[in-house]
Amino acid sequence: MTPLLRIIRYNPLFWLLAFVPMVLAAAMLKPEAHTLLFVLCMLAIVPLAALLSHATESVAAKTGDTVGGLLNATLGNLTELVIALAALRTGQYTLVKASIAGAIVTNTLFVLGASFLLGGLKHHVQEYNRVNARLQAGLLFLATVALLIPSAVSLTNSAAGAAFTQRLSVVLSVLLIVTYGLGMLFSLKTHREFFANTESGEAGEAPWPIGLALATLAGVTVLVALVSEIFVESVQEAAEAFGITPVFVGFIVVALVSGAAEMSSAFSGARKNRLDLSVGIALGSASQIALFIAPMLVLLSYLLGPAPMDLQFWPSAVVMILIATMTVSLITNSGRSAWFIGVFVLMVYLIFAMTLYLLPPRSL
Amino acid sequence: MTPLLRIIRYNPLFWLLAFVPMVLAAAMLKPEAHTLLFVLCMLAIVPLAALLSHATESVAAKTGDTVGGLLNATLGNLTELVIALAALRTGQYTLVKASIAGAIVTNTLFVLGASFLLGGLKHHVQEYNRVNARLQAGLLFLATVALLIPSAVSLTNSAAGAAFTQRLSVVLSVLLIVTYGLGMLFSLKTHREFFANTESGEAGEAPWPIGLALATLAGVTVLVALVSEIFVESVQEAAEAFGITPVFVGFIVVALVSGAAEMSSAFSGARKNRLDLSVGIALGSASQIALFIAPMLVLLSYLLGPAPMDLQFWPSAVVMILIATMTVSLITNSGRSAWFIGVFVLMVYLIFAMTLYLLPPRSL
Amino acid sequence: MTPLLRIIRYNPLFWLLAFVPMVLAAAMLKPEAHTLLFVLCMLAIVPLAALLSHATESVAAKTGDTVGGLLNATLGNLTELVIALAALRTGQYTLVKASIAGAIVTNTLFVLGASFLLGGLKHHVQEYNRVNARLQAGLLFLATVALLIPSAVSLTNSAAGAAFTQRLSVVLSVLLIVTYGLGMLFSLKTHREFFANTESGEAGEAPWPIGLALATLAGVTVLVALVSEIFVESVQEAAEAFGITPVFVGFIVVALVSGAAEMSSAFSGARKNRLDLSVGIALGSASQIALFIAPMLVLLSYLLGPAPMDLQFWPSAVVMILIATMTVSLITNSGRSAWFIGVFVLMVYLIFAMTLYLLPPRSL
Repeated sequence: MTPLLRIIRYNPLFWLLAFVPMVLAAAMLKPEAHTLLFVLCMLAIVPLAALLSHATESVAAKTGDTVGGLLNATLGNLTELVIALAALRTGQYTLVKASIAGAIVTNTLFVLGASFLLGGLKHHVQEYNRVNARLQAGLLFLATVALLIPSAVSLTNSAAGAAFTQRLSVVLSVLLIVTYGLGMLFSLKTHREFFANTESGEAGEAPWPIGLALATLAGVTVLVALVSEIFVESVQEAAEAFGITPVFVGFIVVALVSGAAEMSSAFSGARKNRLDLSVGIALGSASQIALFIAPMLVLLSYLLGPAPMDLQFWPSAVVMILIATMTVSLITNSGRSAWFIGVFVLMVYLIFAMTLYLLPPRSL
Repeated sequence: MTPLLRIIRYNPLFWLLAFVPMVLAAAMLKPEAHTLLFVLCMLAIVPLAALLSHATESVAAKTGDTVGGLLNATLGNLTELVIALAALRTGQYTLVKASIAGAIVTNTLFVLGASFLLGGLKHHVQEYNRVNARLQAGLLFLATVALLIPSAVSLTNSAAGAAFTQRLSVVLSVLLIVTYGLGMLFSLKTHREFFANTESGEAGEAPWPIGLALATLAGVTVLVALVSEIFVESVQEAAEAFGITPVFVGFIVVALVSGAAEMSSAFSGARKNRLDLSVGIALGSASQIALFIAPMLVLLSYLLGPAPMDLQFWPSAVVMILIATMTVSLITNSGRSAWFIGVFVLMVYLIFAMTLYLLPPRSL
Repeated sequence: MTPLLRIIRYNPLFWLLAFVPMVLAAAMLKPEAHTLLFVLCMLAIVPLAALLSHATESVAAKTGDTVGGLLNATLGNLTELVIALAALRTGQYTLVKASIAGAIVTNTLFVLGASFLLGGLKHHVQEYNRVNARLQAGLLFLATVALLIPSAVSLTNSAAGAAFTQRLSVVLSVLLIVTYGLGMLFSLKTHREFFANTESGEAGEAPWPIGLALATLAGVTVLVALVSEIFVESVQEAAEAFGITPVFVGFIVVALVSGAAEMSSAFSGARKNRLDLSVGIALGSASQIALFIAPMLVLLSYLLGPAPMDLQFWPSAVVMILIATMTVSLITNSGRSAWFIGVFVLMVYLIFAMTLYLLPPRSL
């Protein structure tokens, strides 16, 4: 257990792990203190997500490029998946969808924009592999189309419409997962030379031994599941206490908290002029959530949820995902970045965040 | 008649010509067997469209580059035009519009995507002239704007709104046809050096003598007109018998059937690493239908139809055409292709096709 | 006063200055002759706008690159601002918004398209600095997002919705102005080497002495304000007399009249193969109006207007601005131009203009 302890001691982020037992204790002692539980959950999820992310990468590093890429591509957003599953089991589909849409938009705009800005403040002009950025933008575009079409073909007859949307969601989910799989085959196998980063992974930090990594993966996943359970139960009332909408919580807060670990990797990559790493994390996460996590949740809702969940998002979420996709298409044309590109992308994010923040509660 | 016979003997596609007399006979003997007539019409149109396409190219090959380009640009989608005219004369404007929108989307997504996929399975990376692809994408974008604006400026007062839409449709149709003409002037005359394909036409197959080509053009057009007449009369009831919507028939089935000949040229071009040919067929057909056939039908509806037809499509068709245009813009930036680009484009098409297939009848 | 007189004598445009005293006299003698006043105002604004534009450039030329760029960037659309302020003070918010949206669309499509066409008729292919074009397109995209989001998140509860839209408009206005300022910092200061034009300003015409320029700036601004006052009072009834909608007047007529001076610079630049000048005027004006003038008017409405103005435009205006932005993104990818690109952009403008022209009065 030495490497785990060493990492925890030297990285202040992990001191937050102290909140994990606190939240579990508080949930047993004071299950009605929703605001307190909500805040403790937020603080506990950040270090757990960081541990999960590090463990996944360590396993990936041991298993060779292809299997490793596969692992990263499926487990890279394990935290988001576990939180969404907790919400799914209790049928809080608005929270599930808000956190999916929010994770896509946050990764696409906030993580990418802040990386460009932080990198650009240190380096005059930065270059990155635009082939990968364009592929991820294309995948995001496809997911946007799949989210948009059910809304575009809205039916007046609500009973037939619901059945139609439900069946269509299952079909589209399968199509998205297949596309995601073929995209991995393309970028990891048949045309990998176009996607070669000059650097890879988390250089500098040695990977953990495989046994430790697997044990951490299993143990931390259970902890995240427990904390998520408490989080999902407290979110509704906590949001009301803070005077913010559940949509804002799902869209902005959950996405920022559960992605904190990845974000710090992306930002430090940008500062070190390794922008391919930042772009890969930001757009890779976004497309993974859009083409793998979201469709998986739709399919899993048949097994785990109280009722099937569909892929139909509310119009403003679809518009935001569409705009995020268009923003990425617009800026990744050149494969070059400077600080103002970061400002530009962050401004699009700020417009969304302010809109959701100012929105009166219970208005969506 | 030797070349015509030789072609028919060696190309199994033309054995389907046997269905032409069958459908004419069946229509006289059993005019109420709508499902049978529908299927026979489908089978008969495929080889007729192939003959038309070959005859047009032969005439074009004899008349020199500019006149030939002009001929190809106006007669290249003669089958679609004749079918649409048959539907126009009986006032089936939903079928006309569905087949226009379907032909645009099918050419843009299915033909282009399948060409990229089939070519990419054989060749690691393929290149094509991106200047031409961008021009066609621009023309498609313009047509999309013309289809979108009447819907965006929808009026609450329905009587004034209908008159406004009607007048606007005529003006927009004229603008589109003028743009199409100027686009030909640009690509065939003033800036032809940017659009030079390394190959041109149907190399390998010798063109027919001009007399034979003209006679075929005239005779086959009459046959297509006759079969289209029967097809249009049977489509409504046949679609109900198969449990599919008329929109699905117009959008997907008619487009695939009437374009079968061109598709086989596009696909074989892609396999032979002559991707310019495939892109030219796919996007050239789509822009021709959008900027020439569709506006022509609006203008012709004043002469031939029971009532004037407008250019206002239902919202989901406009959204699909818009998405198809954006897809083309997204992928033609680089002028390079690989198998996954084909998968990507086909997936967009599949999302549309599945949506229309699952749609309950009579819901649009 | 010699340079001012020389300019006026040799440029026939300035003979229109005779209309300035005429309109002021007519407004006192015949305040109810709305149609006459409307026409006289149009004719008087054209030369005043040209004088303002020339005076601003002369001050800018004297004050060095950065301050000069700043001046041009804030006073470049002074005429539009003064007209809009006159309409703002009387609470004619539809006219204000129509003239903002119209100025964005006219600069983006008409000025750019006509420049490309006029330049392309003389030169086979023209090149321009695509980095600047892409930056302006990005800024326009951001403004479009800010206009689109309040409409996308429309609320059913109209009282809460209005308060929400109002607060959101103020926040978005501040964000847009901050982005505009940072964009200037980027293009004029930190990364100016990417935006270097080979030519700059109005070469050939010597700048005026600073005293004359400042006096002209002050005096002409007062005259424009007076004429705008009369114009805004007459526009409603004059539009009815001509049988056109106030939206058409605001969107098309005001934009063409108040931008006439800049347009002639853009067009003559294109003819002289100095396309960077034309692109800078067209897209620079559009982004200045979208990210600086429009948000300023929202903020100023709290001080000057009878009621606060919001940033929510009617849907068809948002669609038109969005399409204009997409058109620019589509064509500025390559940094090359030819006559047909101009035709293409002008056609998009013509589609908008015809739609607004045919629109029945009082239908928006």
